[in-house]
Amino acid sequence: MSAWLEEVAWNEEGLVPAIAQEVHTGQVLMLAWMNREALETTLQSGHAVYWSRSRQRLWHKGEQSGHEQVVKAIHLDCDHDAVLLLVEQKGDIACHTGRHRCFFKRLEKGNWTSVEPVLKHPNSIYGKSG
Amino acid sequence: MSAWLEEVAWNEEGLVPAIAQEVHTGQVLMLAWMNREALETTLQSGHAVYWSRSRQRLWHKGEQSGHEQVVKAIHLDCDHDAVLLLVEQKGDIACHTGRHRCFFKRLEKGNWTSVEPVLKHPNSIYGKSG
Repeated sequence: MSAWLEEVAWNEEGLVPAIAQEVHTGQVLMLAWMNREALETTLQSGHAVYWSRSRQRLWHKGEQSGHEQVVKAIHLDCDHDAVLLLVEQKGDIACHTGRHRCFFKRLEKGNWTSVEPVLKHPNSIYGKSG
Repeated sequence: MSAWLEEVAWNEEGLVPAIAQEVHTGQVLMLAWMNREALETTLQSGHAVYWSRSRQRLWHKGEQSGHEQVVKAIHLDCDHDAVLLLVEQKGDIACHTGRHRCFFKRLEKGNWTSVEPVLKHPNSIYGKSG
């Protein structure tokens, strides 16, 4: 096991939160989770690989949509329990809703309001389901 | 209880991860955690209030250091389980190490390497301990 991997303060489930920030705009695209294998694979492949908590498996970002994230740098915070990826977002769409990023809701007068447009309909990204 | 608070997908501990991003530079400063009271207090006060998991209490960011975060906007992600704050960082120091931000380590050739300077020694921020 690589020493740098063991320096991460993995939680009791063996996970760490990972923020993806777009390198050329500075926009925070999403927050996902990684386990050791996801982080190691991310470094080795140069593409973001997360741990899907809902599907309980490695999730190569963009595996279905083609919207991969090319990883330019990996940062760790002071107490080693959060990771920040600087990425180049393929297709300009990080969110499964077809928006540029997942943080498209903003609190306005007591309501979470969608403030960013759908760039591509999810059906045309993922194909219509049966 | 406010409806918008209940729309957040709180985890089994009643917490949600909250990313603080500096509004004028776009830099990701830190990731911390919030419970309902922290998020509600953040909205009401206009200053970032987190839940300290180590101290198990509300943590008004900057309560000791003076390095408060003025909150300009609060975003939520597509599946409602991560919050993004756009903040103005008082004193230009978000990290308890005296650096601008907590994500000051970068993975370089298999080592987490500090790549950002200490702007102010922690002793002069928090006072020397006895």
